[in-house]
Amino acid sequence: MGKDATGTGGKAQPRQSLTARQYAPYLEAEWGFKNCWYPALFSAELREGGVKGVTMAGHEIGLRRVGGRVFAFQDRCLHRGVRMSLRPTCFTDDTITCWYHGFTYDLGSGVLRTIVASPEDPLIGKVRIRTYPVEERAGIIFVFVGDENYDPAPPLAADLPIHITDDQNPVAHILDDHVYVRGIHRTGNSNWRLAVENGFDPGHLLIHRDNLIVAATDRRMGLGAQPISQDAIKIIDEPDGPKGMMNMYNTRAYKFFTQNREIGIKARGKQPYYARTSVFLPGLLLVEHWPVAGWAQYEWYVPIDDKHHEYWEVLVGRARNEEERSEADYQYTNFFEPLALKDFNDNDLFAREAMQSFYERDGWNRETLCAFDDATIVWRKVAARFNRGIQEPPLRGAAR
Amino acid sequence: MGKDATGTGGKAQPRQSLTARQYAPYLEAEWGFKNCWYPALFSAELREGGVKGVTMAGHEIGLRRVGGRVFAFQDRCLHRGVRMSLRPTCFTDDTITCWYHGFTYDLGSGVLRTIVASPEDPLIGKVRIRTYPVEERAGIIFVFVGDENYDPAPPLAADLPIHITDDQNPVAHILDDHVYVRGIHRTGNSNWRLAVENGFDPGHLLIHRDNLIVAATDRRMGLGAQPISQDAIKIIDEPDGPKGMMNMYNTRAYKFFTQNREIGIKARGKQPYYARTSVFLPGLLLVEHWPVAGWAQYEWYVPIDDKHHEYWEVLVGRARNEEERSEADYQYTNFFEPLALKDFNDNDLFAREAMQSFYERDGWNRETLCAFDDATIVWRKVAARFNRGIQEPPLRGAAR
Amino acid sequence: MGKDATGTGGKAQPRQSLTARQYAPYLEAEWGFKNCWYPALFSAELREGGVKGVTMAGHEIGLRRVGGRVFAFQDRCLHRGVRMSLRPTCFTDDTITCWYHGFTYDLGSGVLRTIVASPEDPLIGKVRIRTYPVEERAGIIFVFVGDENYDPAPPLAADLPIHITDDQNPVAHILDDHVYVRGIHRTGNSNWRLAVENGFDPGHLLIHRDNLIVAATDRRMGLGAQPISQDAIKIIDEPDGPKGMMNMYNTRAYKFFTQNREIGIKARGKQPYYARTSVFLPGLLLVEHWPVAGWAQYEWYVPIDDKHHEYWEVLVGRARNEEERSEADYQYTNFFEPLALKDFNDNDLFAREAMQSFYERDGWNRETLCAFDDATIVWRKVAARFNRGIQEPPLRGAAR
Repeated sequence: MGKDATGTGGKAQPRQSLTARQYAPYLEAEWGFKNCWYPALFSAELREGGVKGVTMAGHEIGLRRVGGRVFAFQDRCLHRGVRMSLRPTCFTDDTITCWYHGFTYDLGSGVLRTIVASPEDPLIGKVRIRTYPVEERAGIIFVFVGDENYDPAPPLAADLPIHITDDQNPVAHILDDHVYVRGIHRTGNSNWRLAVENGFDPGHLLIHRDNLIVAATDRRMGLGAQPISQDAIKIIDEPDGPKGMMNMYNTRAYKFFTQNREIGIKARGKQPYYARTSVFLPGLLLVEHWPVAGWAQYEWYVPIDDKHHEYWEVLVGRARNEEERSEADYQYTNFFEPLALKDFNDNDLFAREAMQSFYERDGWNRETLCAFDDATIVWRKVAARFNRGIQEPPLRGAAR
Repeated sequence: MGKDATGTGGKAQPRQSLTARQYAPYLEAEWGFKNCWYPALFSAELREGGVKGVTMAGHEIGLRRVGGRVFAFQDRCLHRGVRMSLRPTCFTDDTITCWYHGFTYDLGSGVLRTIVASPEDPLIGKVRIRTYPVEERAGIIFVFVGDENYDPAPPLAADLPIHITDDQNPVAHILDDHVYVRGIHRTGNSNWRLAVENGFDPGHLLIHRDNLIVAATDRRMGLGAQPISQDAIKIIDEPDGPKGMMNMYNTRAYKFFTQNREIGIKARGKQPYYARTSVFLPGLLLVEHWPVAGWAQYEWYVPIDDKHHEYWEVLVGRARNEEERSEADYQYTNFFEPLALKDFNDNDLFAREAMQSFYERDGWNRETLCAFDDATIVWRKVAARFNRGIQEPPLRGAAR
Repeated sequence: MGKDATGTGGKAQPRQSLTARQYAPYLEAEWGFKNCWYPALFSAELREGGVKGVTMAGHEIGLRRVGGRVFAFQDRCLHRGVRMSLRPTCFTDDTITCWYHGFTYDLGSGVLRTIVASPEDPLIGKVRIRTYPVEERAGIIFVFVGDENYDPAPPLAADLPIHITDDQNPVAHILDDHVYVRGIHRTGNSNWRLAVENGFDPGHLLIHRDNLIVAATDRRMGLGAQPISQDAIKIIDEPDGPKGMMNMYNTRAYKFFTQNREIGIKARGKQPYYARTSVFLPGLLLVEHWPVAGWAQYEWYVPIDDKHHEYWEVLVGRARNEEERSEADYQYTNFFEPLALKDFNDNDLFAREAMQSFYERDGWNRETLCAFDDATIVWRKVAARFNRGIQEPPLRGAAR
């Protein structure tokens, strides 16, 4: 590896190495953390009887819904290694059959139940594919991804945001009753950590300055915020519950900037607006009262491999009856999805992807963090401390 | 290389290592075997005077037809290494000229005869490109690929199937007189060995269960076959002739499965049907009495590089006169090619390509073979024993 | 890395190793030479206030024009490493602001002037991006690319062709008064050195034999030329000025071939024609009296990375008044660009790209040079001797 002579500027650059050592495990987590709950599909994406394949933190996972229940299993047949989800084949309700030679596995245990082409095979009953714990809640299929012998899996709630209590009009929690949950997911071409760090970053408001939702609602969005007190960032460490951090945006803990005299730029908009951001392991953003008061936006950045993540944008609101659901549908379709999940967040996705080539080339040691990146450093330390393990990369190019 | 933690299931998986050691040379043959005859083009693909380039087992080979005869030569000019076939340029019948600076080689010997831009160059007569032996038979141009000093090249017939004699109505051999030979070739995105192993595999009938040709002809195709006798697989080892193996499909040697009670699946179709499969070095399938009785399908899986093969599907039948040729043309065009070579074999190509990513990631040591894979193991041992050499990979990325 | 068994022909091939050692630094210059002036954009490509990004010799460089003057700066923000030119953002005339968090750099010094989101940040005034010297001449923006501490930068003229004096009707120099300069640039998929070597190569006329401009003007273009005297190639080594070499095409120094009897080919055309070629560091071709007498073609092959170059084709003529400029415009549009810069030079680009795969696989040690390649070897030695440094490759894939 040659010395980089092309883009690191003068000698004045501080090295991050001392700080970086404090969150070393985070820097190793290229493929994500393991032993945690990740969203795999929206419930509506897996019809009764259907089979789909997803990849999360390098795990190739098949999903089948039978009698309403979802089963998750290793999506590589033991025999010749093809993904079973490529050509879904099922002969009974409790099995998945590989389309190639008919290796048929029990959906519950993963045990090889028969082989279509070899019904008396000595392997039958002796080998198995691994299966994965599944929880389906609030219209989302969650899978517990990690070590097979990790037992018991922690509750799903431990990998979701905390219940908000320090607010006069607290947003709903995704596991609450009578919630309305809807969103989209799409693939982002960056490492998952760049996506997380973009999410709660108190300094990236410039990319949203001219966004449609900001202009249309005449919101007063600041230029940035600088922590000025020990209370600015709150560590979340609930026993057997969520771990993460919260940006305590308020004027005692943060100094908000509404203008920058050096270059003559001011915050626009007249309507004051407040949207607190938190981030939880394994990499999940909560934005309270966004895109409008009373709603919350959840974002997952599920590692696919070391260069791609699945970007989940989910809105959570309250809907106690059919009329409220209908109103929520209208707002989601005509306001939230086009202006918030798309126009606004498209800018975030653009920013994460723009960082990828730099971070691939040792950016983790070359970045120059500034004052508001305290939040980023706290997240990195929290993640380094509370994760349940670093996902090992799968075998690559080992054929020779 | 990290430990694979993502897709290999529980501890019950048997390791193939003991077996694998018995065919170790086969596992090294990523780029194919060398010193053997491979099909390069159909005769009709190279017109009089024409020049084309192909790649076989990493060898970049140019072909030119002059006066009916085909010459094969190294398709990289010695001078600056461009492929001459990129812009075919010929000034005489017995030479090939590089389009760039005019290095002109003798088609027969490969010797540098002149340089257009340097007619008095000291290199002339002193250097040469290598040439390759060519045999054109039955409408196919075969090239002997391997070491330049391998002499003499074995007869073409040694790298073709045996002549079938143990059959009341034996299929024609491609070198017989009065044969009708026609087919297609296309590139498959997998290692050539995955293609060979798919071809004769007695357990892959599930992928053909619903194919058009099976349904249209109401054929009774079993679910699978399990060898039950020493005679199930016959090793072919003719002195100076073909080496390979034959699946002796008959009820003394094989147990045929027509149902699988565990998952309630039965063979379909009413017309009993028999199609014996054999495989020969360097990687050539023979299916007798397919797609209909009296015909034979030949398949070559010519290595291109370590991740691609050229898939040749050729039908061989008898045609003693113009009327029979005309009838064969009709059947080929309207039945054999669309229903057999395409619809049916498309499924085989799909399966091979689906295995590639697994075998690239050390699948050769991670696969879990079962009873009917005895045939696969025999083939691997036969190939490991009888090949004439392992093709070394060409230089890659060695510029630094 | 395996032994190459597939494309190097017989034992008669001479090894270049002894010769190659004489220009070893040239072989290391995969990413180009450093500390030299390269063209970045045509002036017309950067409007007032505009920002664009280019990559030269691995340096990612942003360009902004303010008040007519062009500033060049490191196009990676220190903070999170995004390219600022991806979303040009400027709030004042003398700064460039990163679109992501608002790091704002002084265009002249590169010093961090403010951060939009953090106006009181301690980094402000303490860190900087590097800047690059710029010269805009003759409608082209040149940037001095290399070590930041290389001081002083040599004059632009040192990296341009010499002024021609040994000609009755000398072509204009690009820095002369009253010149007409116009051209195109496009990306070539080859290493920059293959492009340079193609440019002045006295033996590659075969690829131009049937080109439109040659046929349309009935020019007598030879088949090749062989140096026969010490004077054939003149080394250019001006004190503090251009370094390079010139093919002294004249009948005392060169033997011109107009036929090749071995394969019965003759030069075509009736109009005698003369176009001398020279090459200068850092990799710049001059063709005098081309495409017609009185004009000169300049070509730069600016390294982008180790596998791509930016191919610049620029015509330089004289135009003393509006009428002459108008006439030059007409000729450029209807003759020079379509027939010379495109049809004719398309063949050169094709040839360079055709060499790339061979040279990537150690072609530098496998090529077989011939008599007219003396010119190539002289260029390699000149380049190895006079360059101001080898560009180190940027960090690649160093994230782990």
